Amino acid sequence: MSMFARIVICGVGLIGGSFALALKKAGLVQTVVGVGRSAATLEEARSLGLIDEIATDWAVALKGADLLLLAMPVGQMDSVMKAAAPHLEPQTLVTDAGSTKGDVFAAVYENLQHRLATVVPAHPIAGAEKSGPTAAFADLYQGKRVVLTPLPESDPAAVARVRAAWEACGARISEMHPQDHDRVFAAVSHLPHLLAFGLVHEIQARDNAEQLFGFAASGFRDFTRIAGSHPEMWRDICMSNRQALLAELDTYLSELAWLRALLIQGDAAALERLFTQASQARNAWGANQ
Amino acid sequence: MSMFARIVICGVGLIGGSFALALKKAGLVQTVVGVGRSAATLEEARSLGLIDEIATDWAVALKGADLLLLAMPVGQMDSVMKAAAPHLEPQTLVTDAGSTKGDVFAAVYENLQHRLATVVPAHPIAGAEKSGPTAAFADLYQGKRVVLTPLPESDPAAVARVRAAWEACGARISEMHPQDHDRVFAAVSHLPHLLAFGLVHEIQARDNAEQLFGFAASGFRDFTRIAGSHPEMWRDICMSNRQALLAELDTYLSELAWLRALLIQGDAAALERLFTQASQARNAWGANQ
Repeated sequence: MSMFARIVICGVGLIGGSFALALKKAGLVQTVVGVGRSAATLEEARSLGLIDEIATDWAVALKGADLLLLAMPVGQMDSVMKAAAPHLEPQTLVTDAGSTKGDVFAAVYENLQHRLATVVPAHPIAGAEKSGPTAAFADLYQGKRVVLTPLPESDPAAVARVRAAWEACGARISEMHPQDHDRVFAAVSHLPHLLAFGLVHEIQARDNAEQLFGFAASGFRDFTRIAGSHPEMWRDICMSNRQALLAELDTYLSELAWLRALLIQGDAAALERLFTQASQARNAWGANQ
Repeated sequence: MSMFARIVICGVGLIGGSFALALKKAGLVQTVVGVGRSAATLEEARSLGLIDEIATDWAVALKGADLLLLAMPVGQMDSVMKAAAPHLEPQTLVTDAGSTKGDVFAAVYENLQHRLATVVPAHPIAGAEKSGPTAAFADLYQGKRVVLTPLPESDPAAVARVRAAWEACGARISEMHPQDHDRVFAAVSHLPHLLAFGLVHEIQARDNAEQLFGFAASGFRDFTRIAGSHPEMWRDICMSNRQALLAELDTYLSELAWLRALLIQGDAAALERLFTQASQARNAWGANQ
């Protein structure tokens, strides 16, 4: 792919910073400009070499920009698009790294109606329980999946260029319909995060929390790792995808009601069958990761 | 501590095999005898050097034994104690590695009433999502916790000797009341296992399971790792500790009902507060692991 002379990244944390580092490592970008809410975070990103310039004004940031990556929490999509829209140049591709797509689509049609051809929403699937500029590294996306959810109006050339940028980061690319995307990730990502947050929240509030944490071991450690994730990011994800997440939560509550009934009945055989199906499926999946 | 001339291990998998290897490495045992349901597993354990002898008869196995470790799934405690009881010698310590203690106590008082002074129940807290003789290694217990739950009738000298054996394996020892033990581990171990088994069971049964697993990433991987655990072992744990487990499940269902209400109401601020409390508690705990 050809060089980007100038890309602008809004949100210079793990996701945005790693994208910048990967493109720099691939020799595909000349100048990376950082935009964000926190001056301290932007300075940190510059001192770490994630970005080359800091812009506090969208007109300055987007002057001559080839690509704008929106990598801040999804709750800010609407306001950021509104602020950036008047300053986008005809050639500027707009993409994002949001974990939910329904709200991104809503914000795009609200704010970027005049230039839908150059908009290509995307979702890099990369663990984000550590956050901020110091967590960023160039190889974050190596072998990871990135889901593109193009608009019906997206220009195929714009889609190809965004795809090529993520491929240059080492990612494996899929395309999905945004509704399918939001349902799939409600099941395999958003619900597990909600469940882990809930478990730790409930335990830490108990009188004997210290005793409980004291005897928690490796199973608890891995099960709750995602409960250490960024609260604001996950608030936004849960809020913006809450219809699909509620559907998944209700399905899971049915499963727990079934497990509860098996325990009450003392149905050891049914419990073992269920555990065996889960164990075989989990280990077959794990062997291919 | 002084040498064990002969120890007998019933269940020569990860837990029992690693105990044998650790005592051998410490130079504290002369002969390890294996007992179990499967001739193939016992042969495998002998060829791997976990045990020195295979016994198919309790009278032969326990002849001159200093210690019997019961390391098979907890559902077999009662029948194994019944079979071994007539052949225990006066000096033979009896301990176990069961993840639940209420049922072990019931089996002890049912079958070993005549020799309670030498019985010292215990629970090594070591991850067991891999199982079988090939999973065993000498350093499994290094730095891990082992909870002793002595009987009121346990001889202090017997408790000290079992404690010393686990310390020789590198473990950190605590003592707890068996009821406290079962409540604590229902919360931080048994419930998370049940939740992970349930999530994977529910997903693998769907028509689009392949698509869902295809987009599952590192968060899902860690959250569901314990769903790959040994189904029979976890059936037994869930059955034998089901009162405490049901209490924990019901507490957790209340937490999920609360989360569900926050999602339905769209209460982003309350959701963020909850995630923040969970995240801070999880990361503070994780930093000390």
